Amino acid sequence: MSLLVIGTVAFDAIETPFGKTDKILGGAATYISLAASYFTKKVNLVSVVGEDFPVSNISMLQKHCVNTDGLQVLKGQKTFFWAGKYHNDMNTRDTITTELNVLEHFNPIVPEHYLDCEFLMLGNLVPKVQQQVIAQMKQRPKLIVMDTMNFWMDIAMNDLKETLKMVDVLTINDEEARQLSGEYSLVKAAQKIMKMGPKFLIIKKGEHGALLFHNEQVFFAPALPLEDVFDPTGAGDSFAGGFIGYLAETKDISFDNMKRAIIFGSAMASFCVEKFGTEKLIGLSQEQLDKRVQEFVDLVQFDIALV
Amino acid sequence: MSLLVIGTVAFDAIETPFGKTDKILGGAATYISLAASYFTKKVNLVSVVGEDFPVSNISMLQKHCVNTDGLQVLKGQKTFFWAGKYHNDMNTRDTITTELNVLEHFNPIVPEHYLDCEFLMLGNLVPKVQQQVIAQMKQRPKLIVMDTMNFWMDIAMNDLKETLKMVDVLTINDEEARQLSGEYSLVKAAQKIMKMGPKFLIIKKGEHGALLFHNEQVFFAPALPLEDVFDPTGAGDSFAGGFIGYLAETKDISFDNMKRAIIFGSAMASFCVEKFGTEKLIGLSQEQLDKRVQEFVDLVQFDIALV
Repeated sequence: MSLLVIGTVAFDAIETPFGKTDKILGGAATYISLAASYFTKKVNLVSVVGEDFPVSNISMLQKHCVNTDGLQVLKGQKTFFWAGKYHNDMNTRDTITTELNVLEHFNPIVPEHYLDCEFLMLGNLVPKVQQQVIAQMKQRPKLIVMDTMNFWMDIAMNDLKETLKMVDVLTINDEEARQLSGEYSLVKAAQKIMKMGPKFLIIKKGEHGALLFHNEQVFFAPALPLEDVFDPTGAGDSFAGGFIGYLAETKDISFDNMKRAIIFGSAMASFCVEKFGTEKLIGLSQEQLDKRVQEFVDLVQFDIALV
Repeated sequence: MSLLVIGTVAFDAIETPFGKTDKILGGAATYISLAASYFTKKVNLVSVVGEDFPVSNISMLQKHCVNTDGLQVLKGQKTFFWAGKYHNDMNTRDTITTELNVLEHFNPIVPEHYLDCEFLMLGNLVPKVQQQVIAQMKQRPKLIVMDTMNFWMDIAMNDLKETLKMVDVLTINDEEARQLSGEYSLVKAAQKIMKMGPKFLIIKKGEHGALLFHNEQVFFAPALPLEDVFDPTGAGDSFAGGFIGYLAETKDISFDNMKRAIIFGSAMASFCVEKFGTEKLIGLSQEQLDKRVQEFVDLVQFDIALV
C-alpha cells in the first residue's frame, strides 16, 4: 500500500569525533524515505526545499523509487540548514546553527494523487503542520505514525497533545517519554502516553535499542553493537522509515508484525550510523540487508524450553 | 556439578527514593549463592563474617541448600558493612560508609570437601584474594567466572590483570569495560579484554541489559522493563548467581547454553531489584521463576523468515 512521508528535507553540517562535513543532504523525511524505500516502492514525499537544493539529490531519491511530486521547491529561498557537533560519547550533541529558511512558513500541500495513501508517516515537525497533513487526507489512513521531539514539548505542548490524539503510533526517545509523561519508569511513562492517544508507543533508546508498547504487551529490539558509531544523525528517522516501510508493504499492523517491522527499522538505523549523513543508506543491496537482519536474529535469539 | 562461591557476606544500609533500610543482609556472595540456589542444590560458600552476624541469616542460606561450612565466623570482630544512597535515576549511588571489619585481613580457606568443585564463582573482592582461592583448588575447575569493579582497576590493576589470566568468564559493567580496555566502543573493548585472559566476557548494562562476547560471537539479553526499580543493590551478583548456577547444574559451557544462562541470570536480577536487599530472592517458587523467564522470551522473540 502507498506510504506518505512528511518531514524536513535539509542540509546538515555535522561534526563528530571521526570528522566533519560541509553541507550534506539531511532531514527527517530524507532518511525516512530512503529507509522505507528498501521495503516498499510506493513512497510519496511531501516536503519543501529552496532553490539551492541540488537536482542530483532529487534524482537520487527518485532512483530509490521515492515520488517527489510533493517536494515543493521555493524560488529565491534557501533550504533548511542545521549544523551540530556531537560529543565524544555520541549520545549528546550541541546545535551550532539552525536556519529555518523555507521551513519558517511551510504550508504542506499533499498532491491529489497522494491523498488516498493508507500509511502516513509524520516526521518530526511543528505539531500544527502535522495536523494539517492529516486533515488533507481523503480518508483516515490505516496507520498514522508520528515522530516528535522535546523541543515541541517545551514550546507547543498543547498542539502536540492535539496531534497525539490523531495518531496510532508515536516514536520518541527515552528522555522525551519521561518529559511527556512526567514518569521516570518507562513502563509507567508508556502507560500514561498511550492514554494520550497513540495505541502503540515506540521508545527509542539509541545504542540501547527500542521498546514497543501496546496495551499490556511489550517488545524489545536491541541496537546492534557496532565497532564504531560514525554519525548518529538520522538514526531515529531511518528506524522509523524501515518500520513504516515494512508495515506499508506487508499491510499487516498486528503487534507481531510490528515486532518484525521494528527489527527492520533497527537494521536501517544500524546502517545509517556507519557513515556520515545518508551515505550508507544509498544503494544498499538486498544481500546486505538480509545479512544485517540475520545479525539481529543471532544477537537475541535463544532457545529455552520451559517445563 | 558442585559450585564454589567466594565473595563478601555483609551488612548493607541502603537508601533509595523508595525508602531506607537499617543494616540488612547483603554482600556479593549472599546474592550469588541465593540466586544460584534456584538452579543447583550444590552451592558451597566461602566467606567471612563477624560475631555480630545473626544465625538466622545462616539458617536462611542453609534452607536454600547453600553449604556454609566455608563461612568463617570471627570471634570479637564485626561483619563488613556498607552504606549507600542511590540517586533518583537509580543508576548512580554514593557510598556513605564502608567499614571493612573482618574483610581487612580476609584469608579465604576453602574447606577440603569443596576443593574439587568444578564451577568457581569469584565474587568481587581484592584480586589477590581471588587468586588465592584458585590456587587452593585440587584441579583447575571446568569454569571460573570472575566479577570485579572499577575500584580494583584504580588501586590494583596489575593484580587484577594477573587474576584475569586465570579465569574463563569476566563479568563487568559497561563503564568498567571502557576503563579496563581504554576503548569507548564496547565491541572494541570486548576484543581487547578477551585478549587479557577470559575467553568469554559479559558486559552488564544495568537497565539496558547485558552483552555476552566470545570470539566473534555476541549475544544480547535485555533487562526486563519494570514499573519500579526499588533497590538495584545486588542485581549484578544475582545475575552472576543465576548464570553460574544454571551452568553448574546443566554442566554445559557452550556459547548456546551460556545464552540460556544469561537469561536465567537476568531473571534473577529482575527479581532482586523489586524489593530491598535480598528480600525478593528468598523463597521464590518455581512458578514465579518460569513466569518470569517466559516474560523474557515474550520480550525479545520475533519471527522473521529471511529469503
